[in-house]
Amino acid sequence: MSKKLWGGRFTKSAEEWVDEFGASISFDQELVLEDIDGSIAHVTMLGKCGIISELETDTIKEGLKTLKEKAKNGELEYSVKLEDIHLNLESQLTDIIGPVGGKLHTGRSRNDQVATDMHLYLRNQVNLIIELVVEMQEALLNQAKQHVETIMPGYTHLQRAQPISFAHHLMAYFWMLQRDKDRLTESLKRINISPLGAGALAGTTFPIDREYTAHLLGFEGIYENSLDAVSDRDFILEFMSSSSILMMHLSRLAEEIILWSSQEFRFIELDDSFSTGSSIMPQKKNPDMAELIRGKTGRVYGNLVGLLTVLKGLPLAYNKDMQEDKEGMFDTVKTLVGSLKIFAGMLNTMKVNKAQMESATKNDFSNATELADYLSGKGLPFREAHEIVGQLVLACVKKNCFLVDLTMEEFKEASHLFEDDIYKVLNPVTAVQRRNSAGGTGFEQIRKALEKAEMVLPQVTESVK
Amino acid sequence: MSKKLWGGRFTKSAEEWVDEFGASISFDQELVLEDIDGSIAHVTMLGKCGIISELETDTIKEGLKTLKEKAKNGELEYSVKLEDIHLNLESQLTDIIGPVGGKLHTGRSRNDQVATDMHLYLRNQVNLIIELVVEMQEALLNQAKQHVETIMPGYTHLQRAQPISFAHHLMAYFWMLQRDKDRLTESLKRINISPLGAGALAGTTFPIDREYTAHLLGFEGIYENSLDAVSDRDFILEFMSSSSILMMHLSRLAEEIILWSSQEFRFIELDDSFSTGSSIMPQKKNPDMAELIRGKTGRVYGNLVGLLTVLKGLPLAYNKDMQEDKEGMFDTVKTLVGSLKIFAGMLNTMKVNKAQMESATKNDFSNATELADYLSGKGLPFREAHEIVGQLVLACVKKNCFLVDLTMEEFKEASHLFEDDIYKVLNPVTAVQRRNSAGGTGFEQIRKALEKAEMVLPQVTESVK
Amino acid sequence: MSKKLWGGRFTKSAEEWVDEFGASISFDQELVLEDIDGSIAHVTMLGKCGIISELETDTIKEGLKTLKEKAKNGELEYSVKLEDIHLNLESQLTDIIGPVGGKLHTGRSRNDQVATDMHLYLRNQVNLIIELVVEMQEALLNQAKQHVETIMPGYTHLQRAQPISFAHHLMAYFWMLQRDKDRLTESLKRINISPLGAGALAGTTFPIDREYTAHLLGFEGIYENSLDAVSDRDFILEFMSSSSILMMHLSRLAEEIILWSSQEFRFIELDDSFSTGSSIMPQKKNPDMAELIRGKTGRVYGNLVGLLTVLKGLPLAYNKDMQEDKEGMFDTVKTLVGSLKIFAGMLNTMKVNKAQMESATKNDFSNATELADYLSGKGLPFREAHEIVGQLVLACVKKNCFLVDLTMEEFKEASHLFEDDIYKVLNPVTAVQRRNSAGGTGFEQIRKALEKAEMVLPQVTESVK
Amino acid sequence: MSKKLWGGRFTKSAEEWVDEFGASISFDQELVLEDIDGSIAHVTMLGKCGIISELETDTIKEGLKTLKEKAKNGELEYSVKLEDIHLNLESQLTDIIGPVGGKLHTGRSRNDQVATDMHLYLRNQVNLIIELVVEMQEALLNQAKQHVETIMPGYTHLQRAQPISFAHHLMAYFWMLQRDKDRLTESLKRINISPLGAGALAGTTFPIDREYTAHLLGFEGIYENSLDAVSDRDFILEFMSSSSILMMHLSRLAEEIILWSSQEFRFIELDDSFSTGSSIMPQKKNPDMAELIRGKTGRVYGNLVGLLTVLKGLPLAYNKDMQEDKEGMFDTVKTLVGSLKIFAGMLNTMKVNKAQMESATKNDFSNATELADYLSGKGLPFREAHEIVGQLVLACVKKNCFLVDLTMEEFKEASHLFEDDIYKVLNPVTAVQRRNSAGGTGFEQIRKALEKAEMVLPQVTESVK
Repeated sequence: MSKKLWGGRFTKSAEEWVDEFGASISFDQELVLEDIDGSIAHVTMLGKCGIISELETDTIKEGLKTLKEKAKNGELEYSVKLEDIHLNLESQLTDIIGPVGGKLHTGRSRNDQVATDMHLYLRNQVNLIIELVVEMQEALLNQAKQHVETIMPGYTHLQRAQPISFAHHLMAYFWMLQRDKDRLTESLKRINISPLGAGALAGTTFPIDREYTAHLLGFEGIYENSLDAVSDRDFILEFMSSSSILMMHLSRLAEEIILWSSQEFRFIELDDSFSTGSSIMPQKKNPDMAELIRGKTGRVYGNLVGLLTVLKGLPLAYNKDMQEDKEGMFDTVKTLVGSLKIFAGMLNTMKVNKAQMESATKNDFSNATELADYLSGKGLPFREAHEIVGQLVLACVKKNCFLVDLTMEEFKEASHLFEDDIYKVLNPVTAVQRRNSAGGTGFEQIRKALEKAEMVLPQVTESVK
Repeated sequence: MSKKLWGGRFTKSAEEWVDEFGASISFDQELVLEDIDGSIAHVTMLGKCGIISELETDTIKEGLKTLKEKAKNGELEYSVKLEDIHLNLESQLTDIIGPVGGKLHTGRSRNDQVATDMHLYLRNQVNLIIELVVEMQEALLNQAKQHVETIMPGYTHLQRAQPISFAHHLMAYFWMLQRDKDRLTESLKRINISPLGAGALAGTTFPIDREYTAHLLGFEGIYENSLDAVSDRDFILEFMSSSSILMMHLSRLAEEIILWSSQEFRFIELDDSFSTGSSIMPQKKNPDMAELIRGKTGRVYGNLVGLLTVLKGLPLAYNKDMQEDKEGMFDTVKTLVGSLKIFAGMLNTMKVNKAQMESATKNDFSNATELADYLSGKGLPFREAHEIVGQLVLACVKKNCFLVDLTMEEFKEASHLFEDDIYKVLNPVTAVQRRNSAGGTGFEQIRKALEKAEMVLPQVTESVK
Repeated sequence: MSKKLWGGRFTKSAEEWVDEFGASISFDQELVLEDIDGSIAHVTMLGKCGIISELETDTIKEGLKTLKEKAKNGELEYSVKLEDIHLNLESQLTDIIGPVGGKLHTGRSRNDQVATDMHLYLRNQVNLIIELVVEMQEALLNQAKQHVETIMPGYTHLQRAQPISFAHHLMAYFWMLQRDKDRLTESLKRINISPLGAGALAGTTFPIDREYTAHLLGFEGIYENSLDAVSDRDFILEFMSSSSILMMHLSRLAEEIILWSSQEFRFIELDDSFSTGSSIMPQKKNPDMAELIRGKTGRVYGNLVGLLTVLKGLPLAYNKDMQEDKEGMFDTVKTLVGSLKIFAGMLNTMKVNKAQMESATKNDFSNATELADYLSGKGLPFREAHEIVGQLVLACVKKNCFLVDLTMEEFKEASHLFEDDIYKVLNPVTAVQRRNSAGGTGFEQIRKALEKAEMVLPQVTESVK
Repeated sequence: MSKKLWGGRFTKSAEEWVDEFGASISFDQELVLEDIDGSIAHVTMLGKCGIISELETDTIKEGLKTLKEKAKNGELEYSVKLEDIHLNLESQLTDIIGPVGGKLHTGRSRNDQVATDMHLYLRNQVNLIIELVVEMQEALLNQAKQHVETIMPGYTHLQRAQPISFAHHLMAYFWMLQRDKDRLTESLKRINISPLGAGALAGTTFPIDREYTAHLLGFEGIYENSLDAVSDRDFILEFMSSSSILMMHLSRLAEEIILWSSQEFRFIELDDSFSTGSSIMPQKKNPDMAELIRGKTGRVYGNLVGLLTVLKGLPLAYNKDMQEDKEGMFDTVKTLVGSLKIFAGMLNTMKVNKAQMESATKNDFSNATELADYLSGKGLPFREAHEIVGQLVLACVKKNCFLVDLTMEEFKEASHLFEDDIYKVLNPVTAVQRRNSAGGTGFEQIRKALEKAEMVLPQVTESVK
């Protein structure tokens, strides 16, 4: 096909266009170490099973180890002509050890090879991400420990609803992350499993030992079906789903960080490392990192949608569409690693404006609920209690005062159930303190919750040191 | 606000617009039984903890049971004015038992109440869906058992690549569904957990017993943090993610069913119950159900994207946006239940055109790989083996024949390694038979795989009876 | 197929499951009037072209008009057995006028019929939505007119950056909506086009007149290709895309409404009709409608993703998957109509807390930029100007005062370019007033912008009356 | 903040993490030429308006031109420390021309600067993409012209329904692309508009001339509102929506190319340049490019979802989240350019297997519709005609023959309306020929349609030469 086909404006030939469009080496080079490790395991097995000779095995392994060293030192160069990481490495291997390199591919196909690389890669990354989730949980826990008795407004509808402890608020995120960790950990069961030996789609006639390569690579099992092994991308989708939920959590906390950093809230102050200022407005601190993390939720969602779309309606077994599984996965990994890393640092270094938080719990009617509970607690039906409190609040509004400003007489007039302890009840600190139902914001409950949280992070003590 | 505000064209008043827009009763009535069950547990606990009297407890429970009966018989009527299922039921309860009904809400808020309903609902539905996944696995297994030695082309790039067993192909889907089941089962850990008692957001001052209500409702634990309890929708997102992956699997098999039913493939014939015909083309069978299931993948993906969007960047705790969690969840449940149900039936009743499948494995060069493996197996380096086979195929193309048509002399001429057994090797049945690596398409392997599959479905035998 | 196939637990037979799953009558009855209109046009054309007799034409038209009356009065009943709106109507038509009803379908297929219904429906709805966009633009314009000189902080990163006019802020949304309207209007070119007469996929052998039916139905043209006519769903996707962008705009303003309604901002107060309160906290107003609209962005995005997924990789021409085009479209229309309607009302009735807004522009350093511009305006290079201002701000921070509190001497000391007018420059009102570049927040510019805005809403004056 | 904060495992410091995470230079360098062009226009205007001196103007312009030359030659180097393309260029400019470079930023902010770059970039790319759409339309038209009388089965539900012309099938895609082109062209109205001069968010106090810079940059207008100008990303979303619909079209044709290339269909043969083979199976051609394009639909959808998510609920004006607008846009542009380019080449070079297509229209009952139309055309009510044909087909099935094999007596027996011309009617070629309703598959209609198509591509003739 001549260049003319493409018209005069483009200087690339059809072949170049197609090569570039079809090649994956620009991104799948990220898998270079996994690819070499997979090959080492494969060739070791071929030797052990007598499919190739001991000498051949050793030669190929030596060659692969040389490549691995080079890869680690960034000395490998890749060619688009050789399409992908597998062919690039095979070619370089043969350059080093000669034609015997061709025996590496015995009983293997690129289809099971690339799947193996992906499983290895994702297992390693998910393990790293789990560690980073723990780091962020630690950061939350550390701040929470310091703020058990720091009270702030609890919001619903972004309206102040009931006073709560700041520790309690932070710990809500701790438990979200705990679920994220559980999901990621459970997904490892399906990630850390070996497709190696599935061949192009149907298995192989060579007497290979799939359990053995799985063992060498640290996999916990093998795919039961060769067609499934080469066409399955669930493990990436599952990772992307868990990542989307995790990023959603981060986006919620990021939103709160942004709100709390505003001049209107002033609940916290971010460290300079995690915010940017202005040369002429030194007091201004843009919560850039929180905004960026909130924004990056978009790409993680988008990557999930992208791969779900790719796989929809695809017949078995391998189709070239599936090459589209990689970039989104790499991007999601990179985004999670960065976001968690930065969030932990941001939390660890932020300053909490206790006074401002506490002052926001006063001078409003968010203690009206306390009053109603007080009456209910003394046996009054809920609806009646509400009515009485409603009238008291209305009276305050008319008098332009707050509940705490009412006299004991005024309370008694409204209901004889009120007693002197009512003023204590109206105090926001008391309000927080008294919510001691399991999982509630009462200080006692929070302290129990912090202990539980420590317990689900046993490894922390070690990794911290 | 007067009607005029809205202009003359609309007959609804502002209030009606807002009421309708804000009300959830049109869809959350789906939760009626769960809501009543939750209330029964709550009131039982209130009584046990002495928060309300024994008499009150009994009266309220009786009232709730009456409502439950009515609900089951479809005798309840709902009002948009009363906004949601909770207020509708509360109002009807009070109609039956009088003001004491108001005590039901002691120590509870609509925020933890609705979350409880959702958890109960989804637990029940996920358990049902798991059963339906098993039904479909059974259907696959049943067909597979009958077709161990039915051979067909294995495809990559929708090009015939290597012959495989039809059982092997079907079992690929069995294992996909197995992962779906695992994911759904694991998600139950996070679904079957109780938010009840978290109050509006902060817990309550009443001495409630959250473990007890959790126990009564069959939950396996309670949320550790009240803010998290009322604002968490992870469990729905996780369900929607698992559902998206499951539907993706169904869409792939649906695509194949559609291809196989075409006049070009003619591999299977669907039962009339699962296809539609034409009054004048009685032989025409549209695989409507397979198409519809493939299409419904879209709405399940869409529901996931919808809820991910809703939750992105939402500050704690409850926000009205979260009312948007329900319709997508109901729709996803309904879609899965229908799709699985129908897919099982479709598989169980389809007729397999063995002869047509087998004939498609002949008269092409998809056995060329066998030849190359044959030579490699005799020690020839992979690349050399490939070269020789390439030349043989080329020779065939020139002579307008296939590999099986070459004479022994012609084979010997190409390589002295060829021996008489080469004709057997070229037979597609042999080709399938010989791929006996673990998880491969060899008949022996498939029989082992079918046994394993039975083992992961122990409960099947029971439920089938 | 026997019921047993489905197992004992389900009471529905296979047939019932399939019927229900495959039927669209539960939702496509929404198209009843469009379907009848399409049929009237079709039969009129059949008569005009002599394909059926005049008498037949009249009889069928009469029957259709009777059905239309019934439909309007809600007197039609639909059966799942008859699958969709088309077959339900055809059956009822034949009930009324006898076998001649069967002639209605001459030269038409359900494929072009349903496409015609969808085009008619969406044209009508998009026209309605455009009107509602205008209503909301009006509401913005009305508020803006009253608040040209109401100043408030302009935010970047949710940090106060520069003071602006509230009118200017509102008008940003006016112009977003203007683009939405443009997009919707342009999409009508592709919506308001007739597929009628394309037959099942290939056209028809009857001498029909497609231009004539198009004319009767108010379409502006016909599809040029019959395959495209029956398989195109672009017009719905385009609507869903425009809707997603529109909802994104609403979600942004909703977010601001929610922020402004918080106790921290207190910039506005929503009317009771658009917020919900609490029986015991009468001062609390949850901005429910704004939250709900923000949340409903999710479903509109989800519907778009759903249909994009359905259509991906679908071969020509009609496939049953395409039945999935309807519910998402209906839901998107309903969501937009409600959201726009309510948003207009919410804006028209909200109270603006001018004093609070203005006070938020003081007592901070958001006027530092003015100072830098002042110096630059006098010829000082930008970077130097910034440096000087930075030092002045720092000095203030140390002295715990603001820029306006510095003496003339202090200014002069920093730069001799400062003169007495500097205090005026520092005033937030002046700061706003002076940004008179085109499209800027200067009062003069805003007044011009309001005039332009009126001009792009010429029809408003009429519809308002 | 010390390195310790991050734990020992990571070698990067907090600052490095944050710098890398926050910097955009790794991708926004793609905008280098647009950024320089924008600056040249801005400084020209500053000079013309007397805001800076003529000498300053000339010096800065010279510096910018030097940078542009360097950029074109790939001689610029970028630093992550300098965050983005704007600061990188500003720094290099000052290196060349000294402190006067700082005056370039007078009356401009990075917020309006980056928005300007994006508008310029996308305008240029959309114009290029429109040209590529035309190239692909040409390719379709070229093939269609050669295949007006090539008949093939028309499919619904992937079942053969009615014979059609291959030209007709191809032209369905021509018209889809025509809509894509229309959408892209219309979106230029909103892309090709200038935000320059909007400042950070509120306009500027300098007497700038926004119309003038707009004119210099070839924009067709300016944003009416400065807040909108810097926070609007609709134009990217609109591009991404149009791109998603376009990719959906390509995915549908790609699916058909893949089906047609299968051994089961064998309707076409792709050129070697657009398919990959196997060293040992020379006859095997994987339609890699078609698969890849189908797969890449996923990322284009994903990019759209990503940006929709980013913008949801974002308050005005600029937020750091918006930095996430770029990578998805670049990726979408790159994907579209490659996909269109390759698709045009693939279509131009594919070989059509006429004989195979035609043979697929025979030996089935897809001509049954012709028979029914024949009877209807002679006045028989539709339903009766269908019944008669149904019986004839059934008779054939029993006799194991096709309609064309029935004798004239058998036809007459079924209905006296049948006459000798019935055999011609049953011929697939006649069937195609006779569907001459507007937009139908009749040869006459197709020829008209091809003429119309030429007319909507007037510029083609030129560009082809």
